[in-house]
Amino acid sequence: MPKIKPIDLVGVVRSARTEGEERLRKPYWGDVVSRIELDPEVFEPSATTGLSDFSHVEVVYSFHLADRVCRSAQHPRGNRAWPAVGILAQRDPARPNHIGISVCELVSADGLTITVRGLDAVDGTPVLDVKPYRQGFAPRGSVREPQWSLELMNGYF
Amino acid sequence: MPKIKPIDLVGVVRSARTEGEERLRKPYWGDVVSRIELDPEVFEPSATTGLSDFSHVEVVYSFHLADRVCRSAQHPRGNRAWPAVGILAQRDPARPNHIGISVCELVSADGLTITVRGLDAVDGTPVLDVKPYRQGFAPRGSVREPQWSLELMNGYF
Repeated sequence: MPKIKPIDLVGVVRSARTEGEERLRKPYWGDVVSRIELDPEVFEPSATTGLSDFSHVEVVYSFHLADRVCRSAQHPRGNRAWPAVGILAQRDPARPNHIGISVCELVSADGLTITVRGLDAVDGTPVLDVKPYRQGFAPRGSVREPQWSLELMNGYF
Repeated sequence: MPKIKPIDLVGVVRSARTEGEERLRKPYWGDVVSRIELDPEVFEPSATTGLSDFSHVEVVYSFHLADRVCRSAQHPRGNRAWPAVGILAQRDPARPNHIGISVCELVSADGLTITVRGLDAVDGTPVLDVKPYRQGFAPRGSVREPQWSLELMNGYF
């Protein structure tokens, strides 16, 4: 088997949204403004030069509060009204590697501080990468997804 | 600082597209069909149940052939016609953590084998995660990106 390159955090999310609130299941993240503080031991300030020419970024982070791993199928959010589907057919934190990805609006990029709106990650979340959102990487062809997946996103952003 | 959950590969890309060809800089990936072979020590076959109700997947992988790290700014693809921008303002493999993300068309999901079209990863690429593409995670609001970024994607997919 191939080997992966070593991975560690390169920054952290700072937000007024804390673990406690998240656990109360308030799913609306649309207007949450948070900062990504990049590690000065990893990056020079010029690492974000030109980023503000993009309207959106993709943030890769670790679901650091996830306390279990599902290797098979489960009902999304434990909701039995929705079908039990594989962990790779959902975006639940309880996945092997606990990697989360979210596209959010870029508010500003100033050296090692990136401010974003609509990032669904609580205060203290370890950040693994930030990428510019490029339209060329959007889905090619028409997009299809099941009804439960559309319902699950109601009121999320 | 917070700690991330441990990360290791959960599968591997099998493709007719090999390292050598990639290095020849043939950027067109649009019709490349590849298989993601998931590790049976990580997943049960039901991990992909329901995935085929989605038209597209997001594949998270390691740029395992990357041989350097940029921590500041550089010209994208070494092209001096484009501005030097920060490594976080581009999607170059030479980024800390060497994480790649790509959205591609799902052809089929059969237990621990996922077949996709348009994945820009060579044979042997270690896979870190696969997520269903959900329209609710698309960018909210209008999308903006610089001219060089649009030009770079010409003929890529």
